Amino acid sequence: MINLSPIAFVKNIRAEIEDDNWGDVISVIELDSAFSEEALFQIETFSHAEIIFYFHLVHDNKIETGARHPRNNKDWPSVGIFAQRGKNRPNQLGVTTVKILKREGRQLFVQGLDAIDGTPVLDIKPVMKEFLPREEIRQPVWATELMKNYW
Amino acid sequence: MINLSPIAFVKNIRAEIEDDNWGDVISVIELDSAFSEEALFQIETFSHAEIIFYFHLVHDNKIETGARHPRNNKDWPSVGIFAQRGKNRPNQLGVTTVKILKREGRQLFVQGLDAIDGTPVLDIKPVMKEFLPREEIRQPVWATELMKNYW
Repeated sequence: MINLSPIAFVKNIRAEIEDDNWGDVISVIELDSAFSEEALFQIETFSHAEIIFYFHLVHDNKIETGARHPRNNKDWPSVGIFAQRGKNRPNQLGVTTVKILKREGRQLFVQGLDAIDGTPVLDIKPVMKEFLPREEIRQPVWATELMKNYW
Repeated sequence: MINLSPIAFVKNIRAEIEDDNWGDVISVIELDSAFSEEALFQIETFSHAEIIFYFHLVHDNKIETGARHPRNNKDWPSVGIFAQRGKNRPNQLGVTTVKILKREGRQLFVQGLDAIDGTPVLDIKPVMKEFLPREEIRQPVWATELMKNYW
């Protein structure tokens, strides 16, 4: 067992879990009081950050450990839970790249975080271009269809 | 507190923690026996995956919670732990995009995972092009210098 503690929490206007239209959502990621603002020092010298967060509202009995249709849409193939990004997954972790807007003390303002208000954040990492895929990206048609209105 | 369990472990030839030259390393990510191969079904229809892993060899007393010079290199500025990607960080999480080579049952073969042999894996997510940064990337000079020989 690995025990983790939230380093921050998300504040935004999204109280309900929704599938789409996350692109314009502005979130404030506020560090837990255990941290000083030093922990975010110079993060604004990067344009983007990866946010690792915990899907805290997923119930244990909803977690898929095998294969399923993404969004339960039968038009799409049944694929393994590790071949999709849905929230009902083992360990309930989310990872999303966001645009950094500004930092104010222990608060980081970001755009495009697909997490609801109150979500616990486990890590913040700066995006370095060298960590992006170094070869051409290939993905199945269902993934492109699923993402059509996501942002 | 959030309790997580490894879903898989890394097997490769890197026994020691090293900073650079990860690009050619081939790793096998083998699912824990709690999972069937169904959990990885169709992951090979994606070219890349994000691996979320746990830096299991980091000692508590090494974890930085404020700011430091990346790799303790005084030529680079002291920046917050959340403005760098070093392993000595709160919650000890790593996230890396890897190239998918093939799947064989409960084993996923990948290239470019910067984790040593025996590393616990907490999640595997397919890379969708819509989850890449949607604006131009900006990063400080020290990050580009640090990454020079990383892959």
